[in-house]
Amino acid sequence: MSKSSKKYILGVDVGATSVKMGLVDANGRILSRALFQTKAFASKDAFVKELIKQMRALLKKSGTGKNKLAGIGVGLPGRVDFKKGIVHDLTNIKGWNEVPLKKILYKIFKTAIYLDNDANAFASGQLIWGKARVARNAVCITLGSGVGGGLIIEGEVFRGSNFSAGEIGHVCIDINGPSCGCGANGCLESFVGNRYIASRAIEKIKKGQKTLLTKLVNGDLKKITPELITRAARQRDAFSVKLWEQTGTYLGIGLSGIVNIINPDMVIVGGGLSKAGKFIFKPLNRELKKRAMRQHLKVLKVQNADFNDDAGVIGAASLLERER
Amino acid sequence: MSKSSKKYILGVDVGATSVKMGLVDANGRILSRALFQTKAFASKDAFVKELIKQMRALLKKSGTGKNKLAGIGVGLPGRVDFKKGIVHDLTNIKGWNEVPLKKILYKIFKTAIYLDNDANAFASGQLIWGKARVARNAVCITLGSGVGGGLIIEGEVFRGSNFSAGEIGHVCIDINGPSCGCGANGCLESFVGNRYIASRAIEKIKKGQKTLLTKLVNGDLKKITPELITRAARQRDAFSVKLWEQTGTYLGIGLSGIVNIINPDMVIVGGGLSKAGKFIFKPLNRELKKRAMRQHLKVLKVQNADFNDDAGVIGAASLLERER
Repeated sequence: MSKSSKKYILGVDVGATSVKMGLVDANGRILSRALFQTKAFASKDAFVKELIKQMRALLKKSGTGKNKLAGIGVGLPGRVDFKKGIVHDLTNIKGWNEVPLKKILYKIFKTAIYLDNDANAFASGQLIWGKARVARNAVCITLGSGVGGGLIIEGEVFRGSNFSAGEIGHVCIDINGPSCGCGANGCLESFVGNRYIASRAIEKIKKGQKTLLTKLVNGDLKKITPELITRAARQRDAFSVKLWEQTGTYLGIGLSGIVNIINPDMVIVGGGLSKAGKFIFKPLNRELKKRAMRQHLKVLKVQNADFNDDAGVIGAASLLERER
Repeated sequence: MSKSSKKYILGVDVGATSVKMGLVDANGRILSRALFQTKAFASKDAFVKELIKQMRALLKKSGTGKNKLAGIGVGLPGRVDFKKGIVHDLTNIKGWNEVPLKKILYKIFKTAIYLDNDANAFASGQLIWGKARVARNAVCITLGSGVGGGLIIEGEVFRGSNFSAGEIGHVCIDINGPSCGCGANGCLESFVGNRYIASRAIEKIKKGQKTLLTKLVNGDLKKITPELITRAARQRDAFSVKLWEQTGTYLGIGLSGIVNIINPDMVIVGGGLSKAGKFIFKPLNRELKKRAMRQHLKVLKVQNADFNDDAGVIGAASLLERER
């Protein structure tokens, strides 16, 4: 079937908090959307049922019949067998264990279906419709509750020997560092993952450090988020500025090692944390210049990711563009 | 020209201490050898002159005329433009700055010539004639005065966006770590490079720790080498065993991060340090099991490199096998 006869792709971005989906056209634009909360479902089966219901509703709402649907792409936060379309397990979503989601979805939708790890889907979106179109080798990083990574090698998403490449968050940058959710310690994620940043902030505040954040959350420190830290930093809260300064430095240390290994011409930074903008990018770039090797820096560009909060949905849809 | 009509390749392994060369057959076996000291030459020009003289002599000695020579492969310890055959600069060999070595050699030998970074050449040798023949994705590491790395991605040596990929030695594993020759600090090389190991040993001995090493070097601590540390460890010198234990642990920490990024099915460890055998491999494997992710470990094999001290020469020769 040619591209032109089937114009639309359904992109689904499964997250630990919410599932976003969108009908995406051949230029990577979202025409119609849907969203539901992940946590509302007690079991994997109930979750998959709702997923299918919502997908059907979105296709119906937008009048996309089979003759217009090129396929479905799904990004998931966990271990996914890209070839077989099986979900090994998910991070922060319980009950997923070797789920043949591709098969399940195919039975219903009878169309081309691609599943991938969400960070790979993100990288794919940047490659097909974003800045990475012009990259030969790129390291894509998404900063959120976890640190996700996707690699582009010689113009293709590189998934590794069993679809697990790009675990950028689990590179040790400090042999004496804090313990990480993965079981090791000193991982990049344990320095720049959302909750680790928040708990670093809380710890400091409890030790008596003054910050606008305390006021912004009315003393309820558990409510501290990266968004609030950025808001406080914009209001020149020295504490928050310094928190981003440290976070950007850690990121730069981790990324410089990855740059030295991969020698990419592009690093793309996305995810919620990247909204901190210059507060993070300035120390990140400084550290890269200090630690990445001279030859590597000659070809390297650091870029903000395209598509903001839509990067997941667009990335998932993009899986169809390259593969079909 | 077919492979069978031109049977031999001249492989040249340029090191900071010595230059080794060998005539290599189509099966990766060295038929004839030559060696000279690198340090003896005051200038780059004198060095290149000697290099050419020795290459000619080896070809003549072995009776390899133009009709039998398939080409020349050269591995160099530094930044090399693999495509253009230009040496940007070398580590620990002065006076090399944008040297068009391929052109220089072609004028004399009128045959196919490939230059590459020595770690890439090493990886190429393992890929063409060694254990990595069966690997899809592999991380090859050579442990010596420096820490060199070569990546095999989807069955090919991966060189990055400007031929600088694989700088495994310059990944930060400790944000508070010692300063490294590259200008940064806490790099893997600053923990496991030969001279750093030796100086860690010397420091401890000076602080009063007892070891067989002191006797083995007659009190001249500057003479401590990895070979001697291994010799002492084999004689159950607790100090030396612990030194390798720490070194293997550092290596495992560094490699686990790289494994999490690349998701290789093989890690190949070569170079002088790998001769420490179990003293290094045991802690290395333990640390990998602790820090590399479950999914990654499922497909991973850690292997000793093939070809021992010939890995450089054979690797250099192998550059011709894949490319012609």
